[in-house]
Amino acid sequence: MRFTSASTSADGTTSRDFVHDGVPGVLWTPPGEPAGLVLGAHGGGQHTRSPGVVARAHRCTAAGLAVVTLDAPGHGDRARTAQDDRFATEIRARITAGGDAGELVASYNALQASRAIPEWQSVLDALPDFGDRAGFWGMSMGAAIGIPLVAAEPRVHAAVFGLIGATNALVAAAASITVPVRFLLQWDDRLVARDAGLALFDAFATARKSLHANPGGHGDVPDHEIGGAAAFLAGQAAAG
Amino acid sequence: MRFTSASTSADGTTSRDFVHDGVPGVLWTPPGEPAGLVLGAHGGGQHTRSPGVVARAHRCTAAGLAVVTLDAPGHGDRARTAQDDRFATEIRARITAGGDAGELVASYNALQASRAIPEWQSVLDALPDFGDRAGFWGMSMGAAIGIPLVAAEPRVHAAVFGLIGATNALVAAAASITVPVRFLLQWDDRLVARDAGLALFDAFATARKSLHANPGGHGDVPDHEIGGAAAFLAGQAAAG
Repeated sequence: MRFTSASTSADGTTSRDFVHDGVPGVLWTPPGEPAGLVLGAHGGGQHTRSPGVVARAHRCTAAGLAVVTLDAPGHGDRARTAQDDRFATEIRARITAGGDAGELVASYNALQASRAIPEWQSVLDALPDFGDRAGFWGMSMGAAIGIPLVAAEPRVHAAVFGLIGATNALVAAAASITVPVRFLLQWDDRLVARDAGLALFDAFATARKSLHANPGGHGDVPDHEIGGAAAFLAGQAAAG
Repeated sequence: MRFTSASTSADGTTSRDFVHDGVPGVLWTPPGEPAGLVLGAHGGGQHTRSPGVVARAHRCTAAGLAVVTLDAPGHGDRARTAQDDRFATEIRARITAGGDAGELVASYNALQASRAIPEWQSVLDALPDFGDRAGFWGMSMGAAIGIPLVAAEPRVHAAVFGLIGATNALVAAAASITVPVRFLLQWDDRLVARDAGLALFDAFATARKSLHANPGGHGDVPDHEIGGAAAFLAGQAAAG
């Protein structure tokens, strides 16, 4: 992990850009000793410095947690492959034509998971100072990556997912997740059918799961849920 | 309002039994100046001193709120009418026979709402010291009373409901509720069908509503949701 720059913001949060195995990322740390580490995966079309990603990182550091974010494959500063471009073009065309891009998005998300999961595992290997465990927070494409990651990765002890519906692959992965999960849905999400979101919540094997649903669209998760999710991860980190 | 006894528990909460217009109740107050008042309506078969009712009152006083609870008609120390007895007998028989008591329970709940709503309004009249506003917390039968009460009563500024499904009457009342609502459902509730619970959440007119669903049966609302609901009501009281 090669750190390239560091800055500290008014709230005392230090953010350090890094490159690890060619993947750009940011490590956010609170002023004092971090109470735990969160793997923060962004959504489709975003990157490590998108406003929502930065805001969630600050909510976590305010709750005493460190956060590591990575640019997803084909996102942010990373090269886009011909496959990335093809999916982006097709998804845009489908939406422009008023069609349902759900299946295309699910296929792209599955591709992203297969590419990103080893990157997250490698980053976890590279941050031994935070102990051998971390929380995970990813919604939309970030959840599509995170659900199979958390199913496969015993070092993740709690997770926040959301803004995503059931697919066969995600249901199968959710069925082997036994750590505490908070699952956020938006009640009027035009990108995630209500039934599909509820079916995925249903699929998590853990008995320690909570669904939080709020009015509004895909991008309208209310601020109190962002703060609540950070508090949930901090509570789980404290619970050991 | 005639107070009949008072006691203070180890956490500094004072509970005062009272009778108001013939209805027995308890007023719970925190050690300091209360930040607001909560109307706490119990569920079917419970009363003001049921363990869950007492636990919720203490979570509210710990959050700085006063709570007033009332024995519902036909419950606790109150006389049961022939109608109460008939409903109780029929509901028990239906459940014993392995049948669906849902419609009977909904009919009884509607009767309870018509009897209890004026009692809650009268109690609110009798507690002017808390200002002209209050939160409401009622689940199951308590929500069946509370939803039409909150729809009709402008002094209620925020509400926690849950463990109840859509009926025509409740959907109609929910459609005129515009104050912030937290709605708790149990994902494996054999008394409330999942779809009916979700349909009732959907019906609330307010944009400031959150659904929280957790695994387990009707009586298994997790402790973190009880604390979270008290914090929600305290936050709404503080928001003015």
